[in-house]
Amino acid sequence: MSLLHPDRLFPADPGTRTIARSLFETVETLPIVSPHGHTDARWWGENPAFTDAAELFVIPDHYVVRMLVSQGVTFEALGIGAGAETDRRKIWQCFAAHYHLFQGTPSRLWIDHALSEVFGISERLCPANADAVFDAIKAALATPAFHPRALFDRFGIEVIATTDSALDDLAQHQNARASDWQGRVVPTYRPDAVVDPDFEGFRANLDQLGELSGCDIATWQGYLDAHSARRAFFKEMGATATDHGHPTARTADLPQAEAEALYARVLSGDLEKGDAELFRAQMLTELARMSAEDGLVMQLHAGSHRNHNTGVFNAYGRDRGFDIPVQTSFVEALKPLLNAVGMDARFNMLLFTLDETTYARELAPLAGAYPSLKLGPAWWFHDSYEGMRRYREMVTETAGFFNTAGFNDDTRALCSIPARHDVARRVDCAFLAELVVTHRLDEAEAYALAPQLAGGLARAAYNL
Amino acid sequence: MSLLHPDRLFPADPGTRTIARSLFETVETLPIVSPHGHTDARWWGENPAFTDAAELFVIPDHYVVRMLVSQGVTFEALGIGAGAETDRRKIWQCFAAHYHLFQGTPSRLWIDHALSEVFGISERLCPANADAVFDAIKAALATPAFHPRALFDRFGIEVIATTDSALDDLAQHQNARASDWQGRVVPTYRPDAVVDPDFEGFRANLDQLGELSGCDIATWQGYLDAHSARRAFFKEMGATATDHGHPTARTADLPQAEAEALYARVLSGDLEKGDAELFRAQMLTELARMSAEDGLVMQLHAGSHRNHNTGVFNAYGRDRGFDIPVQTSFVEALKPLLNAVGMDARFNMLLFTLDETTYARELAPLAGAYPSLKLGPAWWFHDSYEGMRRYREMVTETAGFFNTAGFNDDTRALCSIPARHDVARRVDCAFLAELVVTHRLDEAEAYALAPQLAGGLARAAYNL
Amino acid sequence: MSLLHPDRLFPADPGTRTIARSLFETVETLPIVSPHGHTDARWWGENPAFTDAAELFVIPDHYVVRMLVSQGVTFEALGIGAGAETDRRKIWQCFAAHYHLFQGTPSRLWIDHALSEVFGISERLCPANADAVFDAIKAALATPAFHPRALFDRFGIEVIATTDSALDDLAQHQNARASDWQGRVVPTYRPDAVVDPDFEGFRANLDQLGELSGCDIATWQGYLDAHSARRAFFKEMGATATDHGHPTARTADLPQAEAEALYARVLSGDLEKGDAELFRAQMLTELARMSAEDGLVMQLHAGSHRNHNTGVFNAYGRDRGFDIPVQTSFVEALKPLLNAVGMDARFNMLLFTLDETTYARELAPLAGAYPSLKLGPAWWFHDSYEGMRRYREMVTETAGFFNTAGFNDDTRALCSIPARHDVARRVDCAFLAELVVTHRLDEAEAYALAPQLAGGLARAAYNL
Repeated sequence: MSLLHPDRLFPADPGTRTIARSLFETVETLPIVSPHGHTDARWWGENPAFTDAAELFVIPDHYVVRMLVSQGVTFEALGIGAGAETDRRKIWQCFAAHYHLFQGTPSRLWIDHALSEVFGISERLCPANADAVFDAIKAALATPAFHPRALFDRFGIEVIATTDSALDDLAQHQNARASDWQGRVVPTYRPDAVVDPDFEGFRANLDQLGELSGCDIATWQGYLDAHSARRAFFKEMGATATDHGHPTARTADLPQAEAEALYARVLSGDLEKGDAELFRAQMLTELARMSAEDGLVMQLHAGSHRNHNTGVFNAYGRDRGFDIPVQTSFVEALKPLLNAVGMDARFNMLLFTLDETTYARELAPLAGAYPSLKLGPAWWFHDSYEGMRRYREMVTETAGFFNTAGFNDDTRALCSIPARHDVARRVDCAFLAELVVTHRLDEAEAYALAPQLAGGLARAAYNL
Repeated sequence: MSLLHPDRLFPADPGTRTIARSLFETVETLPIVSPHGHTDARWWGENPAFTDAAELFVIPDHYVVRMLVSQGVTFEALGIGAGAETDRRKIWQCFAAHYHLFQGTPSRLWIDHALSEVFGISERLCPANADAVFDAIKAALATPAFHPRALFDRFGIEVIATTDSALDDLAQHQNARASDWQGRVVPTYRPDAVVDPDFEGFRANLDQLGELSGCDIATWQGYLDAHSARRAFFKEMGATATDHGHPTARTADLPQAEAEALYARVLSGDLEKGDAELFRAQMLTELARMSAEDGLVMQLHAGSHRNHNTGVFNAYGRDRGFDIPVQTSFVEALKPLLNAVGMDARFNMLLFTLDETTYARELAPLAGAYPSLKLGPAWWFHDSYEGMRRYREMVTETAGFFNTAGFNDDTRALCSIPARHDVARRVDCAFLAELVVTHRLDEAEAYALAPQLAGGLARAAYNL
Repeated sequence: MSLLHPDRLFPADPGTRTIARSLFETVETLPIVSPHGHTDARWWGENPAFTDAAELFVIPDHYVVRMLVSQGVTFEALGIGAGAETDRRKIWQCFAAHYHLFQGTPSRLWIDHALSEVFGISERLCPANADAVFDAIKAALATPAFHPRALFDRFGIEVIATTDSALDDLAQHQNARASDWQGRVVPTYRPDAVVDPDFEGFRANLDQLGELSGCDIATWQGYLDAHSARRAFFKEMGATATDHGHPTARTADLPQAEAEALYARVLSGDLEKGDAELFRAQMLTELARMSAEDGLVMQLHAGSHRNHNTGVFNAYGRDRGFDIPVQTSFVEALKPLLNAVGMDARFNMLLFTLDETTYARELAPLAGAYPSLKLGPAWWFHDSYEGMRRYREMVTETAGFFNTAGFNDDTRALCSIPARHDVARRVDCAFLAELVVTHRLDEAEAYALAPQLAGGLARAAYNL
């Protein structure tokens, strides 16, 4: 018996399910296009073995950690923080003892899928089988077939993008390219550390940016040139996109002199109130102009309140599951940027939100009008069965299918990649089947759209 | 074969579909009540022939234009702007080549319906049949049966309301009345041009208002009297309603002296910060008081950010698809107006929103309490299958059916009128069928409600 | 024939319905756990007879009154206000004549259920049977079997919590305990009247708090001690929770000296702008700290704009259906409180909202991270079929089931208690069945979860 039912995530109505299943059969094994994610470049550059199930599924997965913590498990019991548990088997046992908490969540779908399809486990994880599963995974991971590059190949990945600091030397990408492995891995230019004055070490980061780029970051123009130079380097290394994680979607387009003065204050650290946000806002427009020039697709991820709990941040650091979405608005916020380059045929921008209320109200109307805009898929907490359904239902009628950017898995968990694409393809085929059954779409159209949603739109949106 | 499946938009579940179909059969051919829309009064006054498919379906339809532009088609290729394409056949061919963009959108439902039901086209529009369809439509349009009044009659329209500037002389309505044609066409009083200080030509509009009404708009009282006079004229010409398109739902109820002083500033053009919005807010309350007096039903459409892109507005003007909804709030905003006349049994107000988050949170609770309030149907981007479903699901439990105002098509596209009512009737019957199947409503109740949703509630809400 | 179909509220799809029905059969008759509500403590302390159907179903039910008023029925016709109708039969007839207004609403589900299951009425209420129903109910109410305690027993209530002012002497709870009746009724500490400077009679309430507690409310520490003392008294009387109804979710954690100074201003009545909200905000954190100490579970109900219409409030008072939800935000608002005690293993807080947009965006992410937080069920206007579905669909994927607090009926209408739990159990079983059919949950898991949702989670969340 399998952990996975072949009809999972298909509509309950038998007629609709039949259509969904048929559609899915045509896309199930298509290559995986993964244009946005957070896999570790070292995996591709050095191909190291993973050590155990806790390292693979628990400790680095903020979805998993947050849920366990929310029910009283300590960070330390999960191997995080000073004096934390170091016995990986015990961490795994703790996870298994709490695995019921994930009932009804996407994490459960992903983990069941990975255990079943990657490791051949046929029973749901529970305290009784925790040790056996831990041992089976440990044994598998020691074999070359479970090293990162082998998994990449086995998963049928056509291309994967990493997300990399503007200050990254992309050495692991160099390694991967220089190896005899054929997998296509491309970097993504993520300049938050040198764009956001609130970023830790921002000022030192600027100096490093100057050194790496050979530009004089003491001037506004030099600073912009430094970005251009780094972007050119990333592009040379295969990048087709940039990524920007901002608290809000605010943009600005200041007159030259004001932008220079603002940069001078930012550089000196002598910020006035509002300067940090204004600088981030201005830089989005500057980076958009660079995108129009160099063709890198611009991704904007807005609306997460990072590190909500001060105590958790101080004791355990970033990315521990305490990033909480906030209300986000795009219409006024994006106006300066869109007035500058929104109608420019060379410019391409993808928008992501954690505030679903903006799908139908703001994002679909914007993407359904501006030639430069497309919508990224349902993001983060919404990368889920219900989340994807709501996305399709709220976006499609106003933006259509072709103003969306297909799916991306956005993951740092390697084994979840096929699982996530599997979920997305199933939900999308279910949605198409519902359109067919309600005669909003012909069956032939659905068959043409399914592979677009499964990969074609992502290839097109990211120029891959 | 038909472009239209007889079971379109009905629920997938066979049992529910059967009930929906039976309900729909009882309302399918009921007369169309169209109490709010934007058809051209000249059609009814002069009954001119339409010239071609591009004029009828593409150039003036902002839904169509925006989608094509969002995918890189230029305005010029659609016949809009300086140096635009003038060959209507080429515009139509361009539209046909991109018709797949509309998959999953309401525009596609409307256009398929019109091509099929109005022009007898049996194949979906595509590049291969674009010329033949263009020719067939052109030939049909030249015949009297396709002139506006004939279409009105053929569509089974019981009554249609136009939307008219407060400064309109309603000459076309006079023409229609004076003709031997029996169609009922009524105007709607839309005073934005003389209420909104930000409106183009506002000051000159005021002078014109003074002339038309014979009132002295130099004083606050004279200005209010001018509105009363114009409203009386519109009412005489058949109007039963007024319409107000405001950026926000804010209302105010200033003491007399403050209102006078505000008007003096507005009149002089010497506005203080916030005066424009405050004046619009104050005028909503003044117009509400007039509604209580003269019985005209007050419609408020709030929450669209008009002309989001400056370049598009400068080059191509208004209504080109770049009006984007924004977050809207009603509770504090409407309080002054509702404290003034909200409990007045003579006052009737219909609320429309583009921000669906207000349906369950604000609008249904308000309409479910105030005797003066009813909710207009799902508006603009939400005039769609999913949009109407969400509306019913989020409004009904708190406001019931009888605090809603039925359907209106809100269209400037004549041939889409039957299509839009068809969609609304189908979605409403589907919703009723779901209530029946889940035993939230008796079947007999559903049969009684269906014609109310199809026309009865609109007649009642608009006093038609 | 019954007013109630045995398959009501189950999914339309036959396969899903079968599973939902089977799940429901396992929870249908489980004891009712009612940890939050507004039943009158006098019912339990004195066990008085109810007099008639209008008193039981119409006059005190703000859901009913608001709907009738929204369609033009006067408050007076419903027995409310000066010179109101006093003939209860006429009030009931008026209600019966307008009962169709409730089609599609939860009130209709509740009232049908109560008429059928409590009073054995088999026909839907209408003008023709209004008198007979009135008489039947009157006759029943005169018998001991329909006194409050008997209904409590008959309804299978395991425990019920009332909501009580901090100033309440809990005499009725004393009476109930001292009686030979075995029903478990516990109070809930609701200190709004002595926490909210905008509350009517706030200053006098403080004095009363001082007297009751024997603490010196002239000082900040004395005031806090007074709360502790009252909480201890409530706890002694069986309370396991506190409840806080605030306009917003804002919290604060001021330095000691600032808090003292703020309290001094609040005490003197010499408030600065913003002081009232700041004091409420500060007190939430103080009360949270007390919860961590004494173990009372803290409930926060935020986001209702009370008494929206001034005229209605002046003429007819509070709780007349004119409380309207407003946009609410939790992320920044709760941060001070959560930084203070959010990770404290002793602290438990339940969050309720009227703004559904916060479910997936804010509340599920918060509850899915903080060990102290759980989500209360869909509240007030959302205590309904569609409201509960949206709640489960938007909450579960991020927070799971175990970060929710089960169901509570929140009612002041005794006869609606079984009806409301019946609706919730049906909707939850329908949701579980959908998870099973789409293979997001095993059937065995659904059978284990159903009783948790029906009562287990509530017991656990409220320490009952």
